[in-house]
Amino acid sequence: MEHLYLQVADRIQAMIEKEVIRIGDKLPSVRSLSKEQGISMSTVFQAYYHLESKGFIEPRPKSGYYVRFSPRRLPELPSATRPVKRATDVNVSEMITEVFSHHGPDLLRFSTASPSEPLLPSAKLAKSMIAALRENNGGLIYENLQGNLPLRRQIARMSIQWGGSITEHDVVTTTGCMDALTLCLSATTQPGDVIALESPAYSGTFQLAESLGLKVLEVPTNPICGPDLEYLDKAIPKFKIKACVFVTNFSNPIGSCMPDKNKRELVRLMNKYDIPLIEDDIYADLYFGKLRPSSCKQYDRNGNVLLCNSFSKSLAPGYRVGWTVPGKYKERVLRLKLNHTISSATLPQAAIGHFLENGRYEHHMRNLRKMLHTQCLRYQQAVADYFPEDTCVTRPQGGYVLWLELNENINTIELYEQALRRKISFAPGRIFTLQDRYTNCMRISYSNPWSKAVDDGLKTLGKLAHQLMK
Amino acid sequence: MEHLYLQVADRIQAMIEKEVIRIGDKLPSVRSLSKEQGISMSTVFQAYYHLESKGFIEPRPKSGYYVRFSPRRLPELPSATRPVKRATDVNVSEMITEVFSHHGPDLLRFSTASPSEPLLPSAKLAKSMIAALRENNGGLIYENLQGNLPLRRQIARMSIQWGGSITEHDVVTTTGCMDALTLCLSATTQPGDVIALESPAYSGTFQLAESLGLKVLEVPTNPICGPDLEYLDKAIPKFKIKACVFVTNFSNPIGSCMPDKNKRELVRLMNKYDIPLIEDDIYADLYFGKLRPSSCKQYDRNGNVLLCNSFSKSLAPGYRVGWTVPGKYKERVLRLKLNHTISSATLPQAAIGHFLENGRYEHHMRNLRKMLHTQCLRYQQAVADYFPEDTCVTRPQGGYVLWLELNENINTIELYEQALRRKISFAPGRIFTLQDRYTNCMRISYSNPWSKAVDDGLKTLGKLAHQLMK
Repeated sequence: MEHLYLQVADRIQAMIEKEVIRIGDKLPSVRSLSKEQGISMSTVFQAYYHLESKGFIEPRPKSGYYVRFSPRRLPELPSATRPVKRATDVNVSEMITEVFSHHGPDLLRFSTASPSEPLLPSAKLAKSMIAALRENNGGLIYENLQGNLPLRRQIARMSIQWGGSITEHDVVTTTGCMDALTLCLSATTQPGDVIALESPAYSGTFQLAESLGLKVLEVPTNPICGPDLEYLDKAIPKFKIKACVFVTNFSNPIGSCMPDKNKRELVRLMNKYDIPLIEDDIYADLYFGKLRPSSCKQYDRNGNVLLCNSFSKSLAPGYRVGWTVPGKYKERVLRLKLNHTISSATLPQAAIGHFLENGRYEHHMRNLRKMLHTQCLRYQQAVADYFPEDTCVTRPQGGYVLWLELNENINTIELYEQALRRKISFAPGRIFTLQDRYTNCMRISYSNPWSKAVDDGLKTLGKLAHQLMK
Repeated sequence: MEHLYLQVADRIQAMIEKEVIRIGDKLPSVRSLSKEQGISMSTVFQAYYHLESKGFIEPRPKSGYYVRFSPRRLPELPSATRPVKRATDVNVSEMITEVFSHHGPDLLRFSTASPSEPLLPSAKLAKSMIAALRENNGGLIYENLQGNLPLRRQIARMSIQWGGSITEHDVVTTTGCMDALTLCLSATTQPGDVIALESPAYSGTFQLAESLGLKVLEVPTNPICGPDLEYLDKAIPKFKIKACVFVTNFSNPIGSCMPDKNKRELVRLMNKYDIPLIEDDIYADLYFGKLRPSSCKQYDRNGNVLLCNSFSKSLAPGYRVGWTVPGKYKERVLRLKLNHTISSATLPQAAIGHFLENGRYEHHMRNLRKMLHTQCLRYQQAVADYFPEDTCVTRPQGGYVLWLELNENINTIELYEQALRRKISFAPGRIFTLQDRYTNCMRISYSNPWSKAVDDGLKTLGKLAHQLMK
């Protein structure tokens, strides 16, 4: 006779397989299932542990157990990348602009790694904006060059979560994270310099490098633990790398999250060669696990790490409020900020400062993370269901995107063009490198809440991929 | 027996000299004075014409006659500038940051060429911000790359005033005018290129040039009609100038306003050498005369003029809303904007768009211009009263600043340091050039409404100048 907990587990597994309970659904609490079924709580616990070990369900902190996708259909992880080992002149194609300039209400966008409107606290942030208007006499006057003080204080306070110990004096606000990256790269490099990026890396960083006249070395990157540091250690002297720009947590598009020991090692390398790390930490707050992953900045004793972040992925892309903790480059960054924009807009900073001060951010982020995690699982499941069987897909532990590696006969630029005709967009892999690579890869954002339209859209993409294989 | 109109004029002149009627005061209307004094309206007219011809009073459109300063005490105009004729490596001193980083409520600031808070429509713009929140569902989402459409429409409509015939498709919004200049200079130059500026020119433009790795040629500039175009015609080929950045209307700090024929000639030169003119037109709406002066952009048929402007001098510096009409460089500017900031903040653009759509801008600007004109006259008078007799001062027809040329024994950096100890700041002439010039010059902003404190501050400056002469 089978153990009771196994009977319970099998029943739940069957319900999951028949999609009676669906990906992202919450399971009953241990207590309530125990009551309903007349079994002990420890039996329920055992059943849930069993299902968890089989990969069907997963616990979430302070919330309970949730259905995740079925492991037997779990696609493979993409392999670590092997970009060509030379620094490349940046010559980013029209394609990036093409991909990101398509708008329109009838377009189903899997292309943007930023929050969709339904995920955001529009009404509550509007209240903070109205408070900011009142408290700043309309916000008409130039804000302090370094940035709104209450906001900087809140940013400094939040650093506890990633192990930082910064004060408001260390923070410089910016017009979004791209502006932070622009200022930090301008402060640390000269035209003609070589910088290192992950491969694949965010297309915007390539474009920024191009506009600053920089060359880029793409570093092999593992979808789990990020850039290959042994490779980097050799590459820095060999290619005379002057700065690294890495997304250390939930990198875009590959989803890697550097383990703490890699972060520590990366900072050690920066100190060894005395070059700056521009740490783009924009996805770190969107973790699905128990705790926010740490940032390299935590290990920075010499001021070589320039941490960059913003509220664009978490709260309000349209507010254009970002910041940097630029370490020993602070004065240079401030000078450049003065030269390029004088100061950042007063009200958006003050409104977000107010939102944070009133504890609204924590509450919002808890919800956002839950929603994103659920969406991530549902999208992963749909990819497993609809795409060709040999499709590999990342299992990100945070952020907004899945990275798919399709059969090498599939050209995702072709797929993109066909999808666009059906009013669906995504980001083809080719735009995340300067080399002729990743042409069978694609990035899918799970930012849009799950819906019939999303399901149909992914089904269509899968069908098109099947057709292109032939 | 003297003419009746002369008796009337003499009486008014005496009242002005005794300061019964003060600088900036409005005179009675022709009709009311005619009634009160029992004289014909034509006599009053003759009296006013007479006083105008003597420089005591001046007419203002749709408003009447106002007292201006007395011509017998009118200081000389500064002479046309003669900067050294070579391109200079930009190496802008700490002084600029020093001058503009001094804040604090107890500092009397004559240093900033931007509106003081009392001049701005705080409550009405807050209403537009609240409307923008409502109409844009909180403004959380990225704005269109090119900029908020209603705002661009309003900007295009306003171009009628300067003879432009642009549409919303020609306009790109930016994070203030400095951002517009940054994008336009980045779009048209390479590091190492030489650009031409007025001399003296806005310190921020030198700093921007430095941060972009550009060299600067300073063009001799006349305080009335702007840059010397004959000189420029020779200098462009000689110094291989790649772009000009000129403030064509009410230039900062020298206050020149290029006549239409010079503007036309400047555009002709740009076409002759096929180089771009970046036209910083940020002060043009602050005219004291009947009409807004035209912009070079009006004469641009080839797309060589990149017009830059913002609402920072007229409405809300803290909103950081500017724009450019970049002619044939539009695609390049858009690409750079995408790379550096993705888009400009949603709500500030929408709020200003709403403010303009509802006709509030015109009304506000009429008041602002009147207030500034009055303040300009009062400050000019105070300079004439308090500063050494050989002080030359500009007579700007718009904008925020007076440019003073003091006795050549006076070093205005020394004056600045002494003034700062007395909690008064202004901008020493040296920061408006890369050369060792203008050390006996200073820029005084009349942005602060006239008050006892302002009067005392200018008196103190004058006293310090007298002391430094000895």
